[in-house]
Amino acid sequence: MQEALTSFQQRNNEQLNLWLQALPHQNQPLIEAMRYGLLLGGKRARPFLVYITGQMLGCDKSDLDTPASAVECIHAYSLIHDDLPAMDDDELRRGQTTCHIKFDEATAILTGDALQTLAFTILADGDLHPNAEANRIKMIKVLADASGANGMCLGQALDLAAENRSVSLEELEEIHRNKTGALMKSAIRLGALAAGEKGLEVMPQLDKYADAVGLAFQVQDDILDIISDTETLGKPQGSDQELNKSTYPALLGLDGAINKAHTLLNEALQALEAIPYNTELLEEFARYVIERKN
Amino acid sequence: MQEALTSFQQRNNEQLNLWLQALPHQNQPLIEAMRYGLLLGGKRARPFLVYITGQMLGCDKSDLDTPASAVECIHAYSLIHDDLPAMDDDELRRGQTTCHIKFDEATAILTGDALQTLAFTILADGDLHPNAEANRIKMIKVLADASGANGMCLGQALDLAAENRSVSLEELEEIHRNKTGALMKSAIRLGALAAGEKGLEVMPQLDKYADAVGLAFQVQDDILDIISDTETLGKPQGSDQELNKSTYPALLGLDGAINKAHTLLNEALQALEAIPYNTELLEEFARYVIERKN
Repeated sequence: MQEALTSFQQRNNEQLNLWLQALPHQNQPLIEAMRYGLLLGGKRARPFLVYITGQMLGCDKSDLDTPASAVECIHAYSLIHDDLPAMDDDELRRGQTTCHIKFDEATAILTGDALQTLAFTILADGDLHPNAEANRIKMIKVLADASGANGMCLGQALDLAAENRSVSLEELEEIHRNKTGALMKSAIRLGALAAGEKGLEVMPQLDKYADAVGLAFQVQDDILDIISDTETLGKPQGSDQELNKSTYPALLGLDGAINKAHTLLNEALQALEAIPYNTELLEEFARYVIERKN
Repeated sequence: MQEALTSFQQRNNEQLNLWLQALPHQNQPLIEAMRYGLLLGGKRARPFLVYITGQMLGCDKSDLDTPASAVECIHAYSLIHDDLPAMDDDELRRGQTTCHIKFDEATAILTGDALQTLAFTILADGDLHPNAEANRIKMIKVLADASGANGMCLGQALDLAAENRSVSLEELEEIHRNKTGALMKSAIRLGALAAGEKGLEVMPQLDKYADAVGLAFQVQDDILDIISDTETLGKPQGSDQELNKSTYPALLGLDGAINKAHTLLNEALQALEAIPYNTELLEEFARYVIERKN
């Protein structure tokens, strides 16, 4: 699993680098900042999900480069904007100085904007397997639905609105289903759509898996914010508490949050049982999500 | 012309409103801010270009609602982000308080982000004439190319980098070709693509027209920043000078800038001569661009 993660991470970096190299004005701070935000560090969990879902359904790696690159562009843009002073005001991300500090705030805003656009350029323009061409528009819809006011942006807005007040477990789940879950789910859907017809057939089970894993990812993030340290995380430990964010450990206690993560893992594994392909890497990813240290 | 402008403006507002109404969480500040930034004021020059280009080529209005709505979402998002304190720091836009003042900075950033996403949702999901279905992916490519690090975002980055230093006329043209011209050109291309095959045939002439009109639009903007007043403009008069921006009047003098606008008008009109359709509204639009008062 760790080996596969590293290998897909490298592949994704190479692909993203090709897209960046195709842009004009390579020496502009905008392009430098896009490269900085996109290529330095990061686990590449979303591209990984694209690759392992698609490969499970019989895709070659090269059939999956396009959606894997697109989803990472959306994720990278969201980190750059979330770190801005007006949002979470973070100085450290992926073990590096955040984009608005390394460059400046205006550049960071534009860099996020341009990375979002690049995601759609990639999905519209990148190579797909001929069998997946019929799904290209669906892929664009899936990524847009997961990213905007139906998904990730909504989640971040709900999260900001929840600072400094206590929210119910239900509200917290809704925040995270949108903020983190929607894009992870889209990664899995994109991997399935890249496999053509086949992917559509197993989509309902994959969605169940994705819902559980996406939420588990966030629960573990909340746990790590308490039990890990800044160096391991690559971002400041304890920042949730500092911003008075509602988290799973805050609502359920640390043990309750750990239990919640395990319940979600079981849900994810159960969803995979009905999928008639080799789901080994998806299983391992689900375990990794709640065992990871950063 | 003024009548057509008002009628398409209303039509575009109604269409955009339908897209906004389809979003969840209508009472969230994010959705309120999207509505505020998208629907209050604005000339709707880009949707207008989509409609008149498409109609010239035989489209019904209803064949053009999708690209017209998408391009306006990109424009509206760019205004919201450009007005942010870290960018142009403007308090007035379209005669209204800017988004980050009416709401807050975090909401304004997310609102711009979500409006960009909405543009791609609309292009991927909105109705098109059956003859234009084959061009849907091309439309998404055209809009993405015009919006990101190849176009509008690059233009804004070049513009920020040019503050407080003098630039050559060549540099200024490059800034504006990207910052303003690229999206206006995409509006015309989208209108043409919505007409199917026919649109592809006249694209080279339309591109020439668009290049001239897009630049003329910016030259006139620069002129109005000097000779108009804040109430007519709906944004602060004199803000270019305050930010030490290079402008056409600053480089060519006021008379030189007015001459430049007329030269561009003639280029635009010449490009239309080779188009075997009724180009009357495109002609009128080109004249309007350099005669408008706001």
